[in-house]
Amino acid sequence: MKPAKLYETLADAIASQVAQGVLREGERIPSVRQTAQHHQLSISTVIRAFLLLESRGIIEARPQSGYFVRRRPDTPVRKDAISAPLSPADLARAPALDTSTLVLTTLRSIGQGSIPLGSPFPDPAAFPWARLNYHAGVVSRRVGQNQQLSDLPPGNPELIRQIARRHLENGLTVDAAEIIITTGATEAINLCLQAVAQPGDLVAVESPTYYALLQALERMGMRVLEVATDPEQGIDIAALESAIVNQGVKACILMPNFQNPLGFMMSDERKRALVEMLARHDVPAIENDVYHELYYGDTHPSSLKQYDRHGLVLHCNSFSKSLDTGHRIGWTLPGRYRAQVEKLKFLNSLNTAALPQLAIAEYLKNDGYDFHLRKLRKAYAQQAAIMSAAVRRFFPPGTSVTQPAGGYLLWVTMPPSVRALELYARAQERGISVGAGNMFATGDAWQHCIRLNYSYPWSADVEAAVRMLGQLAGELTAS
Amino acid sequence: MKPAKLYETLADAIASQVAQGVLREGERIPSVRQTAQHHQLSISTVIRAFLLLESRGIIEARPQSGYFVRRRPDTPVRKDAISAPLSPADLARAPALDTSTLVLTTLRSIGQGSIPLGSPFPDPAAFPWARLNYHAGVVSRRVGQNQQLSDLPPGNPELIRQIARRHLENGLTVDAAEIIITTGATEAINLCLQAVAQPGDLVAVESPTYYALLQALERMGMRVLEVATDPEQGIDIAALESAIVNQGVKACILMPNFQNPLGFMMSDERKRALVEMLARHDVPAIENDVYHELYYGDTHPSSLKQYDRHGLVLHCNSFSKSLDTGHRIGWTLPGRYRAQVEKLKFLNSLNTAALPQLAIAEYLKNDGYDFHLRKLRKAYAQQAAIMSAAVRRFFPPGTSVTQPAGGYLLWVTMPPSVRALELYARAQERGISVGAGNMFATGDAWQHCIRLNYSYPWSADVEAAVRMLGQLAGELTAS
Repeated sequence: MKPAKLYETLADAIASQVAQGVLREGERIPSVRQTAQHHQLSISTVIRAFLLLESRGIIEARPQSGYFVRRRPDTPVRKDAISAPLSPADLARAPALDTSTLVLTTLRSIGQGSIPLGSPFPDPAAFPWARLNYHAGVVSRRVGQNQQLSDLPPGNPELIRQIARRHLENGLTVDAAEIIITTGATEAINLCLQAVAQPGDLVAVESPTYYALLQALERMGMRVLEVATDPEQGIDIAALESAIVNQGVKACILMPNFQNPLGFMMSDERKRALVEMLARHDVPAIENDVYHELYYGDTHPSSLKQYDRHGLVLHCNSFSKSLDTGHRIGWTLPGRYRAQVEKLKFLNSLNTAALPQLAIAEYLKNDGYDFHLRKLRKAYAQQAAIMSAAVRRFFPPGTSVTQPAGGYLLWVTMPPSVRALELYARAQERGISVGAGNMFATGDAWQHCIRLNYSYPWSADVEAAVRMLGQLAGELTAS
Repeated sequence: MKPAKLYETLADAIASQVAQGVLREGERIPSVRQTAQHHQLSISTVIRAFLLLESRGIIEARPQSGYFVRRRPDTPVRKDAISAPLSPADLARAPALDTSTLVLTTLRSIGQGSIPLGSPFPDPAAFPWARLNYHAGVVSRRVGQNQQLSDLPPGNPELIRQIARRHLENGLTVDAAEIIITTGATEAINLCLQAVAQPGDLVAVESPTYYALLQALERMGMRVLEVATDPEQGIDIAALESAIVNQGVKACILMPNFQNPLGFMMSDERKRALVEMLARHDVPAIENDVYHELYYGDTHPSSLKQYDRHGLVLHCNSFSKSLDTGHRIGWTLPGRYRAQVEKLKFLNSLNTAALPQLAIAEYLKNDGYDFHLRKLRKAYAQQAAIMSAAVRRFFPPGTSVTQPAGGYLLWVTMPPSVRALELYARAQERGISVGAGNMFATGDAWQHCIRLNYSYPWSADVEAAVRMLGQLAGELTAS
């Protein structure tokens, strides 16, 4: 067992005070700054400890007020049946826990009255809920009248047909027989990863990349190689090839269109070059294309799958970012790994819910998906421009910001002295969430970067939040 | 690599004939009997080979006609990108594959025009789809008007509150803080298993038990101990205790109410004795209580959780069998393992879809769940009696049948000379599915048993199907 880290010891000490009633329910605890001074610890150590206590449900942050001891819920309590909080031993067993804690508390702040600039999810208000629900009603009635409800792999045939049709319309020739419906792109990627690599294998990813991917690789016991990625061009193909040749990379996972968090779209030429390079080395690539529909230009971006001649590109996709964020319906085109992926899907017994599949198929067949998408793309393009301008205006000199060609995520690189983790903590106290750069890599490469979500309509509140963030960042350049 | 089994060799030979065009698309292939005679193989070897070919999508069964070579779908085909069928090497790596093949083909026969007596799923027509969809519409409108849509663990607070309330009404005192919403009971059990046991650990289950559980244990690398289970009393508590003491059982998974497939309900006394025995040995029990609401008597059955004083019972449950079979919404009360289960849930990144949670919460709050349940229970109780009587009437002498106190599954024990696998194959040719006993254990203990689903309203077709099954079983006693 590893020796307890400083922040764990501090968290335990505070938890102990709560348990003993020294700090009482509802009471405000000393601030980050006060605690740091009192215990002679760094601000970032105290922040980590507070994050941990938050994730254990012992304290909670209240905007504009500070941190408070959480009240227990007032339903009857069976004390002996409630599990104990995570012990230092538990924490020692999970080396990535402080990053997952950061992610968890960032995600938890969504919907608690804060401006969710740190959220990875699109504003749900922009989606065609009434239409989706109408179609869900139509299919519900059929089920009530004896239509079978089957959720077996590979998935609902009509939905598969609709997905294949849309791919064809967008320039990707697809055999419907290749498609497997999954519970979101998350499950698609999990299954594909299990099909192409084993525990201990080295898997290459972009750097930065989105946190859940790093989490999945760690959970599966695979080793991660983070490859240099240009904020506009995408992954460094030569560096990836070198890693394949010299370090034995077994597979890679890429997001060529509106990558989370950098927002780039790889050019057609680079996509082709990348796929051809991988084919030369017989290395499979899992392509996460969930933002595909959210382009600002006039034409669909291409997918890596379009350049694949060997069944080596496993295309993973989802409706969650462009149509239905309330259910989790995704799919994969796993190339030569199709049989394994279907087998893994079946063996997992986690069949993808049948009704949302039917409802989405009905919507795609009968309703205005492209009409909805055109409105969405236009709104996002406008909001991208407004938020970029606001960041350039309010953040300290030396701050750069990406210019996404699609999606709804902005990547902000601040002066090196500004620690995203501290900005995160100060912003939380003011009811604003950001995506701290620390979440997007295994090391500290992006510790002075943040990701901002601009899917929400611009408003005085959002502008005030961005101005505040810039002000806080400015304060942190001086410290 | 293990040497190829006879059925694998036969399947490959037939697949080869199809690939070479010797057997053409749409053409009927020789019957099981003809093939067995021609190749000098046993009927059961040929059946296994046909099942394998079915699961590989090479042949398909057509009711009343036999087996035919499947037609390829007629969308454009990118041949080089389609994966090859499972090779003998793949099969050799998956020792339980012939059983999962059996399960897969049984499940696939549902909805293909056959009478789904082999289905584990309830007839969807009996569920309140219109009401659920109405409430989904209500919550969709709120989301469209800016209510946040959060799918983070532990789940939607209103749904958690409603679940806790129903538990309280049914005699189980629950702290809402213990509840974690999951993607069906399947995910709940997966998470709980990971929390209580590690790969290589010995886990005790009832025998027979439902297939997906055996699949999950195998997938997680745990060893299975099948404990003798009485069709009316439930698991043999003394045998379980002996296994704990002498064989080092780490955890157990039990279904005390309307067990799948035996249908028993353990008495309160035996439930208490079981939980107290486990507590003496500090062994956790995962309780699968998904059929809880489907009782025929006047009062709710108790749960093992009600007798738990040490946080050692991890209660897993779901709405899929009693309210909403179109989505996958379940929950767990993990006792002292709560923190680990929530952490595992979060690390899996497979957040349970938000909208169905909201919709079900709304339904539970405002609608007639108990009214629906009373109708459902009454229908199932009637159908249980009718089907039991039909089995006793049509099946050969020496057949016994359970008398379930709830649920919708009947377990039929036929004379030992009747092989369920052959009955399965002959029934499939006639468009009738059954649950062959082989699926419910790792060995051959139940090879002369079948499980029948009586959730569908009785009809002339269902009666004819049961009569036919009885006739086929009668033919098999003679062979």
